[in-house]
Amino acid sequence: MLSTAVAARHLRLAGARAASKLQPRAPLLSHTAVAFATPTVRNAFRSLPRATFASVASADKKAFTADQYPYLKRDQSFKKLTDGDLDYFKSVVGLSGVSQDEEDLEVFNIDWMQKYRGQSKLVLKPSTTEQVSKILKYCNDNKLAVVPQGGNTGLVGGGVPVFDEIIISTANMSSVRSFDPVSGALVCDAGCILEVLDNYLAEQGYIMPLDLGAKGSCHIGGNVATNAGGLRLLRYGSLHGTVLGLEVVMPDGTILDNLSTLRKDNTGYDLKQLFIGSEGTLGIITGVSILAPKRSKAVNVALLGVSSFDQVQAAFKRSKDELSEILSAFEFFDRASIDLVKQHLVAGKNDPLESPHPFYVLIETSGSNKDHDDEKLNSYLEGLLTDDIVQDGVVAQDTTQFKNLWAIREGIPEACSKTGSVYKYDLSIPVPVFYQMVEDMRARLEKEGVLGEDKNVRSVVGFGHIGDGNLHLNIAAKSYSDEVANIIEPYVFEWTAKHAGSISSEHGLGLFKAPHVHYSKSPSMLALMRRIKDMLDPNGIMNPYKYLPTE
Amino acid sequence: MLSTAVAARHLRLAGARAASKLQPRAPLLSHTAVAFATPTVRNAFRSLPRATFASVASADKKAFTADQYPYLKRDQSFKKLTDGDLDYFKSVVGLSGVSQDEEDLEVFNIDWMQKYRGQSKLVLKPSTTEQVSKILKYCNDNKLAVVPQGGNTGLVGGGVPVFDEIIISTANMSSVRSFDPVSGALVCDAGCILEVLDNYLAEQGYIMPLDLGAKGSCHIGGNVATNAGGLRLLRYGSLHGTVLGLEVVMPDGTILDNLSTLRKDNTGYDLKQLFIGSEGTLGIITGVSILAPKRSKAVNVALLGVSSFDQVQAAFKRSKDELSEILSAFEFFDRASIDLVKQHLVAGKNDPLESPHPFYVLIETSGSNKDHDDEKLNSYLEGLLTDDIVQDGVVAQDTTQFKNLWAIREGIPEACSKTGSVYKYDLSIPVPVFYQMVEDMRARLEKEGVLGEDKNVRSVVGFGHIGDGNLHLNIAAKSYSDEVANIIEPYVFEWTAKHAGSISSEHGLGLFKAPHVHYSKSPSMLALMRRIKDMLDPNGIMNPYKYLPTE
Repeated sequence: MLSTAVAARHLRLAGARAASKLQPRAPLLSHTAVAFATPTVRNAFRSLPRATFASVASADKKAFTADQYPYLKRDQSFKKLTDGDLDYFKSVVGLSGVSQDEEDLEVFNIDWMQKYRGQSKLVLKPSTTEQVSKILKYCNDNKLAVVPQGGNTGLVGGGVPVFDEIIISTANMSSVRSFDPVSGALVCDAGCILEVLDNYLAEQGYIMPLDLGAKGSCHIGGNVATNAGGLRLLRYGSLHGTVLGLEVVMPDGTILDNLSTLRKDNTGYDLKQLFIGSEGTLGIITGVSILAPKRSKAVNVALLGVSSFDQVQAAFKRSKDELSEILSAFEFFDRASIDLVKQHLVAGKNDPLESPHPFYVLIETSGSNKDHDDEKLNSYLEGLLTDDIVQDGVVAQDTTQFKNLWAIREGIPEACSKTGSVYKYDLSIPVPVFYQMVEDMRARLEKEGVLGEDKNVRSVVGFGHIGDGNLHLNIAAKSYSDEVANIIEPYVFEWTAKHAGSISSEHGLGLFKAPHVHYSKSPSMLALMRRIKDMLDPNGIMNPYKYLPTE
Repeated sequence: MLSTAVAARHLRLAGARAASKLQPRAPLLSHTAVAFATPTVRNAFRSLPRATFASVASADKKAFTADQYPYLKRDQSFKKLTDGDLDYFKSVVGLSGVSQDEEDLEVFNIDWMQKYRGQSKLVLKPSTTEQVSKILKYCNDNKLAVVPQGGNTGLVGGGVPVFDEIIISTANMSSVRSFDPVSGALVCDAGCILEVLDNYLAEQGYIMPLDLGAKGSCHIGGNVATNAGGLRLLRYGSLHGTVLGLEVVMPDGTILDNLSTLRKDNTGYDLKQLFIGSEGTLGIITGVSILAPKRSKAVNVALLGVSSFDQVQAAFKRSKDELSEILSAFEFFDRASIDLVKQHLVAGKNDPLESPHPFYVLIETSGSNKDHDDEKLNSYLEGLLTDDIVQDGVVAQDTTQFKNLWAIREGIPEACSKTGSVYKYDLSIPVPVFYQMVEDMRARLEKEGVLGEDKNVRSVVGFGHIGDGNLHLNIAAKSYSDEVANIIEPYVFEWTAKHAGSISSEHGLGLFKAPHVHYSKSPSMLALMRRIKDMLDPNGIMNPYKYLPTE
């Protein structure tokens, strides 16, 4: 629908005819406010207290991961924990750094989605790198398996134990070590919470180069260990480019002291890269040096309604030309996504656009000059309307509206989970066939008779970061069933491999995708990965049962 | 000097008082042309034909590297080349892919600076990845040492042999394999010349994410193998972020097929990172997938005269705030640099500013809207003049002037070499002490009585990429002498280490810096590097005598 009316509840983009009447450079979209009545639920899940997980788990005891996945067997070469071991650990980290309490342990044994449940009997919370070094050396010498854990916000079961691995939490390592306001180099402990760092930098006029829904809980060390992507990657690039240096404790206790704050350093193999995205299988990241960009003075957010995925692509192509250096997000979701948000979350109480559309695009710009950015965005949006590439849209007029528009996009995962059980896939797919994956999956589930209002699978939704080619495919079901799982897998992986995609775009491998990595990596690549793992962790104590397929 | 006059020969920046008279948004700096009469010499050295090196070398036989550095001894575990080996190589690459002609070989045995001279008897020019695989497998099985070579434009002797290593050139692998005009992913052979790729992308509205003086000769495979930095790193980041995938042949002939075109892929260790900057010591890069950014529609270049390095820093800090997302280069050079350019190159025939200044800053902006960029740049420059941070400046008014301003900056290395011999250092140094290195070195050389018009050392110049903290310190002498070398080294490395810098910012280690890497990397880092080298290249055939210190 191409509307020229300015609605009372929200601002409509002026259509082609109306736009032509406007004076050049007049701020086309700033007359009327977008009046969302609802409070923001941006990153709602992170406000869930840790205790919630534990109490839920106690009330409705989740099955152990080891029982859910019977192919997993405890590696009997790993030693079982003894009182002697405990005494040693207490001597290293003190009593306050050791937890054996069963209820406390649940918080660390169960992931936040409550999909995985480990059986660890011990959490250690070192507060210095030297303590981590002593712990790992002891574990390695004694073949005690460990799982490093940050904020426990992972989606693939990589941060929780499977059997009785000792959990080493970075929770007690949360200091900023230094910040250089000229270069933007931030050095901090691995246990710093992403949002805390971002707030710290905001005061200095800088911003963290990454942002994600879990930022209120996740640790920067975990972000680096999982090579987290998120919402700013389109603009600031991946952690492989923005991380300047790392401090890492190797399984034998060796401390790799590479906390460089230099932007350029060509003195030898770039070892830190091995640990970025290694998910705790090669060592524990204890310190991070990262290059923070300047915080943009002007930020705009627009939400657009689009009638086809071809038009979503057309809008994306144009944004690269016309928004170019100020484009900071190009996010996408389908109608099924917003339907779930409307159904389950306050963020979806009021539909942001007057009528429903098959597709939605959320665009964010960030720049140093508000007038320039407004002019670029307005010109871009007018062009889209004139050429009938988008049919409707709103532009946030203040911070609240900005947050409300983001809340819809960021609320999708939580809304999906309200259905009961979610099959979550995180795929890199070439943009031209990006949405075909969702359509093919819907058709398949329908054909098999499991998708519908009275069926187990209620909705198949697609959303994600078009700018990065990253599709989040969520299949919301009433409950988990092997029947549904077997319809989805390995079909979803085969489909992705056929289109030269990646079966894990940003979530990582963890426990979930370890058996499937061959869909995205060749035997020669996997063989070299295994050699690296065996060289750096010969006893295999680091985060076992995960990441690489078992031999 | 703060001038408000518009000079005939070049445009002067309007000073504070004049600026205040101007209308808002009037294009302050576009009245008069900058009239450089000289042809551009940008990247002049790359127009030197390969034959020049050979004929010079023949006329004035350069000493062999092995004789210059007597500590280097041929590893006797390496086999010497036999007729049988030659027959095998001919069967793999054909007669045209094999060169044994002595004069031909000089071109590959001697680096472009004519600082290093190897003694190889054989150059192989495979044209497919499979041929590279067969060659390496054979060399590994037979313990024949090899040195991979791209465009032979390196500055640290990393790409030329020391003894009789077989040279494997990527010259015959120069095809673009694919380009995706939606994502900007370019896939090409390792032997593609950087400038050829950039011209290819220009036709599609894209740009290579790196640019450097040697772009007319250097190969993209060599760029990746040395983690080349250059002129666009400030804007587009390092190759660790922009390289999407690599195809690499390992010493045992295994082909690592990881030519992904995906922006995000978290399926296992990011193996390609190991090879970025490994300088041919772990394998040969045969194919590169790289993310090309959109080419900017508007580009501006300004050259500023500044009276102190403190003011250079102040101008840099402001540029991050005010030019922000459109800043694409912030280069710096001192008066000694431009004096050499004036003395030796046509690019320096006319001083770009009316009077000499102690420091010069070259600023480039790249954006999608010329009016916006002009406004940002003008406002930034006016502020610098008003606050007396810069004293004078010019802004390029057309492509020729754009090239002429860059020609001064890019001509500095060539101008230095005209003195006779250059001691070149490429350092990462924290910006606050960036120029102190140059001053301390000058004072030291003066104190030792070797610097002056009638002395061996004629000039100590500092230039480089302020935006990246990368100083190029060039010490121009009449001829090489051990006396001077011993005054400079290890002082320069110790100074750098003391200030937590890097002894190789972007040039790499090669032969030159292998013995000095401990100034920038700890024993634990070096030990792990050695383990990785030994694992991937157990026979040590890949580019021996270089990169890592000998044990």
